[in-house]
Amino acid sequence: MSLRDELLAANEKGRASYNGAGLTPAPRKHIAIVACMDARFDPLAALGLEVGDAHVIRNAGGLSFDDTIRSLMISQRLLGTKQIVLVHHTDCGMERFSDEELAAAVEQDTGHRPEFPLGSYRNVVEDVQHTAQRIAESPFLTAKEVIGFVFDVESGALIPVDL
Amino acid sequence: MSLRDELLAANEKGRASYNGAGLTPAPRKHIAIVACMDARFDPLAALGLEVGDAHVIRNAGGLSFDDTIRSLMISQRLLGTKQIVLVHHTDCGMERFSDEELAAAVEQDTGHRPEFPLGSYRNVVEDVQHTAQRIAESPFLTAKEVIGFVFDVESGALIPVDL
Repeated sequence: MSLRDELLAANEKGRASYNGAGLTPAPRKHIAIVACMDARFDPLAALGLEVGDAHVIRNAGGLSFDDTIRSLMISQRLLGTKQIVLVHHTDCGMERFSDEELAAAVEQDTGHRPEFPLGSYRNVVEDVQHTAQRIAESPFLTAKEVIGFVFDVESGALIPVDL
Repeated sequence: MSLRDELLAANEKGRASYNGAGLTPAPRKHIAIVACMDARFDPLAALGLEVGDAHVIRNAGGLSFDDTIRSLMISQRLLGTKQIVLVHHTDCGMERFSDEELAAAVEQDTGHRPEFPLGSYRNVVEDVQHTAQRIAESPFLTAKEVIGFVFDVESGALIPVDL
């Protein structure tokens, strides 16, 4: 069976438990989450939130480059979110390379050098702070309340980060 | 109670059900999902997948601008994902504005005009195809198998999109 057919069959099987019907696009709790794409955790579950409560923005690292600012701007201006929750995590792949090394490897393999920032970092707590700083400095975001956490992928615990 | 303390309390209460411990960073099913940030659905649940199976990249619209290409490049090169699953959805806020209108409104309010694309679209099926096209054209992605769906936020059904 192709992956497409497998996913369609799984969707049909699980559809009875879908609980988003009848909700409006505006998140019930006025929260926008910015989290890492990591496979080992579900940001909503980690925060004790449910489908309908929050926008969920995810990328490699849970960073706040332009596309995250775009998403947060739309989330705030058009759909009324007021608070931003950052979730980075322990054992993140972003700590294991440098932008320079990865850009050089990509250029060697493909003949093209990425012109966008790659987002590697050395210290997860500092990177949550750095991510919050970029949000604070954006002229496009009006609601600036930001809460930062590191999620421990072994224990499932949230560790608060002072911003 | 502050939102931060509320989320920490909810995390502590729900921690016993965390099932990501012991997993490696590389997604078990070698899948990277690119989905909209919309609050009404959980992409993993919609696809019948579990924590550990897939990277989950989300933004306003589920689009493939530079930051999504960055995330997919890291997902493929460093963590071995091989297939990309796009999930847009019905009743999306991205259909309700134009880039020009929103950029003008933001400029009027803030004095700054966004220099990044805003990602509005008129037709969700065509936008899934457009999102796949940008991925196909990126020199930075080596695994180009892309599967596209529209998620129906009323019924919970996935509608396949021909790419």
